[in-house]
Amino acid sequence: MPDRVPPLRPGSTVGILGGGQLGRMLAIAAAEFGLKCHVYCPDPDSPAFDVAARHTVAGYDDIAALQAFARDIDVATYEFENVPVESVRAIAANCPVYPDENALAVSQDRLAEKRFINELGIGTAAFAAVDGPADIPAALVEVGAPAILKTRRFGYDGKGQTRIETASSADEAWRTIGAAPAILEGFVPFDAEISVIAARGQDGDLAVFDPALNVHTNHILDTSTVPSGLDPAVEGDAISIARKILDGLDYVGVMGVEMFVESTGSGPSTIRVNEIAPRVHNSGHWTQDACVAGQFEQHIRAICGWPLGSCDRLVDVRMKNLIGHEVEAWPDHAADPRARLHLYGKMETRDGRKMGHVNFLGEAKE
Amino acid sequence: MPDRVPPLRPGSTVGILGGGQLGRMLAIAAAEFGLKCHVYCPDPDSPAFDVAARHTVAGYDDIAALQAFARDIDVATYEFENVPVESVRAIAANCPVYPDENALAVSQDRLAEKRFINELGIGTAAFAAVDGPADIPAALVEVGAPAILKTRRFGYDGKGQTRIETASSADEAWRTIGAAPAILEGFVPFDAEISVIAARGQDGDLAVFDPALNVHTNHILDTSTVPSGLDPAVEGDAISIARKILDGLDYVGVMGVEMFVESTGSGPSTIRVNEIAPRVHNSGHWTQDACVAGQFEQHIRAICGWPLGSCDRLVDVRMKNLIGHEVEAWPDHAADPRARLHLYGKMETRDGRKMGHVNFLGEAKE
Repeated sequence: MPDRVPPLRPGSTVGILGGGQLGRMLAIAAAEFGLKCHVYCPDPDSPAFDVAARHTVAGYDDIAALQAFARDIDVATYEFENVPVESVRAIAANCPVYPDENALAVSQDRLAEKRFINELGIGTAAFAAVDGPADIPAALVEVGAPAILKTRRFGYDGKGQTRIETASSADEAWRTIGAAPAILEGFVPFDAEISVIAARGQDGDLAVFDPALNVHTNHILDTSTVPSGLDPAVEGDAISIARKILDGLDYVGVMGVEMFVESTGSGPSTIRVNEIAPRVHNSGHWTQDACVAGQFEQHIRAICGWPLGSCDRLVDVRMKNLIGHEVEAWPDHAADPRARLHLYGKMETRDGRKMGHVNFLGEAKE
Repeated sequence: MPDRVPPLRPGSTVGILGGGQLGRMLAIAAAEFGLKCHVYCPDPDSPAFDVAARHTVAGYDDIAALQAFARDIDVATYEFENVPVESVRAIAANCPVYPDENALAVSQDRLAEKRFINELGIGTAAFAAVDGPADIPAALVEVGAPAILKTRRFGYDGKGQTRIETASSADEAWRTIGAAPAILEGFVPFDAEISVIAARGQDGDLAVFDPALNVHTNHILDTSTVPSGLDPAVEGDAISIARKILDGLDYVGVMGVEMFVESTGSGPSTIRVNEIAPRVHNSGHWTQDACVAGQFEQHIRAICGWPLGSCDRLVDVRMKNLIGHEVEAWPDHAADPRARLHLYGKMETRDGRKMGHVNFLGEAKE
């Protein structure tokens, strides 16, 4: 683990791996603190470049470019968890990187992630490692059918996964996910999908936002609503789970923790962690407009060694993603007095592409 | 006046003359709407460059550079009122500029400004034109002594002005202000300095923020507090005055209107306009964190032909400027859970230089 650095002074440079909307919103948050940003991304049309003092167009496997990047910045972070650990290591030789290599390694491997979470005494879906199609029949017995076969790495938004009903489809499923190391996950019965966005500072301080109720459409997040409407005891448990995970990783930065909640009649609800994201998270975009300090600011504070801000929520809120052509409704949202419109500056609209989001503000909290 | 344009689509480019903190915060607001910014400033170290997709380093009198700038952008605005009218005209030949040339001309000349305001039936300090030291004795009789001699143009933060007690100091006062066309202003007795920040759209719609109570120290704004604590009737009058001025100029964009309030015992208070600024205004920085849509966003909306946002205030707030070495208290503000810290990315701290501001959030409004 890199040495913890003293608080970075305004005027220092934050390096961000990844130039999408998360990098863009991180760069804006950093700018509000008088920090400069250097964004590193292979895509010359990266939306984050437009709000960064400097940028580098190079591949994530270009060690020389990564080293030059590291020499130009005072701290590094990333906007997505599929950056190779080796790339982070190349930067970490020159400057601190948060979240650290260990957090990245755990969260980019579904098997390591679930094992780590279970070791903390936190529930997940039943799962079994699948290293080839021959492992699938036994795994199906272990986790129960039907089940979902998922690549261990590089899956997102429903990509790299397929449903298996019976062992007879093992070979086909294996090919469908690309014949890569995988896990088989049992189905989790749930009544609600929620997420907890939490920040942890270099001093171990934690700041946790209210849990959000998430609705996915076509495997992509559609809305996040706060308050979630869940029982306060369930929300309290969800927050405790998030705290345990961040502490367990000695984590620095903002993390998104996705969970399933199953009500069990009159008994206590069951919470299972679906996945963790070692970064700012789409289901935390509501914090930008509804809280004293939003998730992007909290992440910048944490990686710069600053004290965390307040997660206090000032208003009720519903975040709606603008996916693909949904963005064409921007004039309606711009005209809605309680809608806070955020567009990502992506020049091309494609199906399934996250083009922006809207935070619909409700009443002020008493 | 240029033709009104249809609403600019996200992805369009906003041109900003001036690269200081106001340009920087305008650029950030534009980025949140998926707009690109091109910032034009003679200073190669302009803070706004760090958050803009493109920038030009050139003088405000470089007509060729201004024309090239105009060809690259879809709409232009400015962050300060001392940009030459000729420069704006050079841009306006190629693309719309808001606020327009007329608003700029009126507000950059203290004499034209006061005459315009008086013509609307709105009070100002007593004033008289001074074109040379020989005009001063008669002007002193007209406005009363003591009085303040101010250059008609290019004054800000107390610069370009001097106090005159008697006609015998006329020559010295004239030299002190730089021997430039001036006005002599009578003193205005006042109990409170307030400002109203208002936005007007291309369709003539108005959106007006709550009046702020301002405190100046050494002629530089120190704090703006909202609510102002003034009688609601006075606040209502102040808002009406701002509306009249923006309508009177057929104005597009955000304007700051500074006013003096004099209580007159049991009778109605008197409001006099001190000056207008055809741009986002320091005394409106509190709107960033306390309102649904802040002044920077409102200005971008107005110049882009979008509907205006909501000026609704969610919380009480006090804005404190961080002037010169006051910025060194940033770690304290960063650690204050109700303080929203904004730093401008200026690398050199100088006495009297605006380095940042803090919005201290109070309780949520019921």
